[in-house]
Amino acid sequence: MTELVPEYTEFGSESSAIDLPSFGIHEGISETIVSTGLEHPNAAPIGIINKGGRPFVRLFKGSHTRANVFKEKYLATNIVYDPLLFVRSTFFDLELPEFDYVPVRGLNFPILKEAIAWVIFECINIKNTDQALVADLIPIEAGFNEANRKDLLVPNRGFNAVLEATVHATRYQLSGDEKYLELIRHYETLASKCGGEKEKKAMKLLYEVLGL
Amino acid sequence: MTELVPEYTEFGSESSAIDLPSFGIHEGISETIVSTGLEHPNAAPIGIINKGGRPFVRLFKGSHTRANVFKEKYLATNIVYDPLLFVRSTFFDLELPEFDYVPVRGLNFPILKEAIAWVIFECINIKNTDQALVADLIPIEAGFNEANRKDLLVPNRGFNAVLEATVHATRYQLSGDEKYLELIRHYETLASKCGGEKEKKAMKLLYEVLGL
Repeated sequence: MTELVPEYTEFGSESSAIDLPSFGIHEGISETIVSTGLEHPNAAPIGIINKGGRPFVRLFKGSHTRANVFKEKYLATNIVYDPLLFVRSTFFDLELPEFDYVPVRGLNFPILKEAIAWVIFECINIKNTDQALVADLIPIEAGFNEANRKDLLVPNRGFNAVLEATVHATRYQLSGDEKYLELIRHYETLASKCGGEKEKKAMKLLYEVLGL
Repeated sequence: MTELVPEYTEFGSESSAIDLPSFGIHEGISETIVSTGLEHPNAAPIGIINKGGRPFVRLFKGSHTRANVFKEKYLATNIVYDPLLFVRSTFFDLELPEFDYVPVRGLNFPILKEAIAWVIFECINIKNTDQALVADLIPIEAGFNEANRKDLLVPNRGFNAVLEATVHATRYQLSGDEKYLELIRHYETLASKCGGEKEKKAMKLLYEVLGL
């Protein structure tokens, strides 16, 4: 059973009350899985950029995430440590039962049951160009899922290799440039050497997606 | 102030009582900082290999960690999320005030104050060859440092890049092979793009060590 523990109420001085680092949003680029879509929930890995304490996001053309943010002006970050979920949400739609719903501002916002922590953001100052949508992020609600927090994360070069391979796989799909295949093979070796079962399953799926 | 919370008593069915994943030791290779040395505490990044639930370690020739394990038959894993501490403990001796001491089996074992969690292992079945020392690890005591756990770790490609660069830097120092410098420069770009201040400081120190 998933225990959702919203830490903050919906009203009040929302953004100032939410301590972003304790919900996994740090300086630099935090690799989260972003959920969006009030009617059709969607999830995809997105880096949340945080420079000088002001988080923002850059969403590239053609993604469901971008279309949902443009229409609904909200997104949620989900902190996830499962490498397979990163690969699955990059290339496939997740199943409906993988989402939970958080009530906020009269909406039922989708988040991931697998999330260790999540933050729902309002997207403001939206700039939409041919290339990308850029939006500033104002946190309005956040919570933990303590049940998912039992196993302590440790740096693992295999897990990291799955992330890198996924980034390069999307670039390969866009460009067809074979230099990315070389990088992906390098990271497959590292995932196989340093990862556990989840890393191996994640790389197997990634190879299937690419037809390798 | 550091709050040490030893979770298990010294005696009893020690190894079966300690749930390694909740102290950051997972399947695959967990990148921890290992502390050793009852007389002169020492710390260095070491991968803890865990295949099929049996953790072991491979320590290469010439390191303080290897000498201490050979002599004392104990080591502690420290789960650390600070990239600068990975780089510092790779190339320099840490300061004495950076260590805490845990009483176990009549010894005062050094662990890192910065650790989120730590496990003290007895090293058994030690095999010592010209190349490396290999030892199986039996957990005998473990604890958390809740004060260090406030900020939730999120996957960050910049942090991961510092780890990779550190691995390649040690190989470069051993071999002088310039192919490692190319990799290190690649990871410096990634750390600069995706990391926060700590990642940038860590890479700056690594560049200083290598004279780049």
